[in-house]
Amino acid sequence: MVERDPSPPGLRASSRTQLRRKRERDRSDWDTVTSILDEGLLCHVGFADATGTYVVPMAYARVGDVLYLHGAAGNRTLRALAAGAQACVTVTLLDGLVLSRSAFHHSVNYRSVMLLGQATPVVDEDEQRAVATALLDHLVPGRSKDARPPVSSELRSTLMLKLPLEEGSAKVRTGPPADDPEDMELGIWAGEIPVRLVADPPVPDPGLHDGVATPTYATDPRRPGWTGGH
Amino acid sequence: MVERDPSPPGLRASSRTQLRRKRERDRSDWDTVTSILDEGLLCHVGFADATGTYVVPMAYARVGDVLYLHGAAGNRTLRALAAGAQACVTVTLLDGLVLSRSAFHHSVNYRSVMLLGQATPVVDEDEQRAVATALLDHLVPGRSKDARPPVSSELRSTLMLKLPLEEGSAKVRTGPPADDPEDMELGIWAGEIPVRLVADPPVPDPGLHDGVATPTYATDPRRPGWTGGH
Repeated sequence: MVERDPSPPGLRASSRTQLRRKRERDRSDWDTVTSILDEGLLCHVGFADATGTYVVPMAYARVGDVLYLHGAAGNRTLRALAAGAQACVTVTLLDGLVLSRSAFHHSVNYRSVMLLGQATPVVDEDEQRAVATALLDHLVPGRSKDARPPVSSELRSTLMLKLPLEEGSAKVRTGPPADDPEDMELGIWAGEIPVRLVADPPVPDPGLHDGVATPTYATDPRRPGWTGGH
Repeated sequence: MVERDPSPPGLRASSRTQLRRKRERDRSDWDTVTSILDEGLLCHVGFADATGTYVVPMAYARVGDVLYLHGAAGNRTLRALAAGAQACVTVTLLDGLVLSRSAFHHSVNYRSVMLLGQATPVVDEDEQRAVATALLDHLVPGRSKDARPPVSSELRSTLMLKLPLEEGSAKVRTGPPADDPEDMELGIWAGEIPVRLVADPPVPDPGLHDGVATPTYATDPRRPGWTGGH
């Protein structure tokens, strides 16, 4: 029998990522972290420079224990990170609205990952090509086999950064509201309203030529966590 | 004829929020900014302190030209902001996956607002109560009329902050992919896959007593931008 390597232990909690409140929401194990990152479509990237602190939405992709960011070579956020600013990358999935009897205990169900670290440029062209493939298949699994691959000039006008999945934490809230015992007898409806992201039927590009078939991954995208159907 | 006051002009672009690339995506007028903030459910709050830069997901609500944040009185992010750290609050709505013929031009359709500024505590109890109402009705319009209002001890254990809608920017991408002319003849499908957040049927709290009716706002939440239906 061949034993599989165990999964990495998960994100490393540091003094700056250790949850200090609601520790029951801490889920920084490897499977939880990667499933959140793989289901998410956008991350929010934070950095600080001499002018201020900024939070910018970005696409991303995970490959193994690395998170990749990319954008135009002149992108201010990516340039600041490449120049040494510490990165904080947060991915949040919203799963439900939680309505408690009391105003005080209203909440949301969610899954989130926060990664801290130093992002560094991807300079090897083979790695850049692999990242381009990963970015496409993160957006829509299967897309990379169809899209016209990047040429060298496109890669040169792109800045790709890598951030290791090392320091950070994941938080998850699930389940019903948590009212105080003395509120349980109130005749007020309480519960969860689940929410999810769904895909609607694809809209072909107006310039699409007749006879180009619509791929299955566009009519029925099978992203991680997506249940399918419109 | 009574003339209505014109809407505020929108967010003030500063040297640190002026878009420097893709300026055609700049939509910092008042109606766009407020419609994005009112449709969003979570914001991502960035701040920096001596230990690093952080991005944290949070609920919020807008009232007029003020964005309100709240959390437990011990919440690290809120305490850092209240102590003077500059806030960056970003709200992003994902509208579609944009598949171009080339790998290079893949994108997403989205609407986002980034606000910068100084958040300050809400100390007046009447304002705190109004904020609690706004937070409930932001989550699910109509909820505030049913929920048990906060008592003074709950307000004291909550930290509420206000951030003016002043400095910032909004960005919007819509429409089809933008392939290079030389790629238009490739026999590769291209287009947009629209995505949206939908609500599933509500899940009553297991402790709910018989006879408590499920409110319409739970079976059919009418949040801004939500089209309804499951």
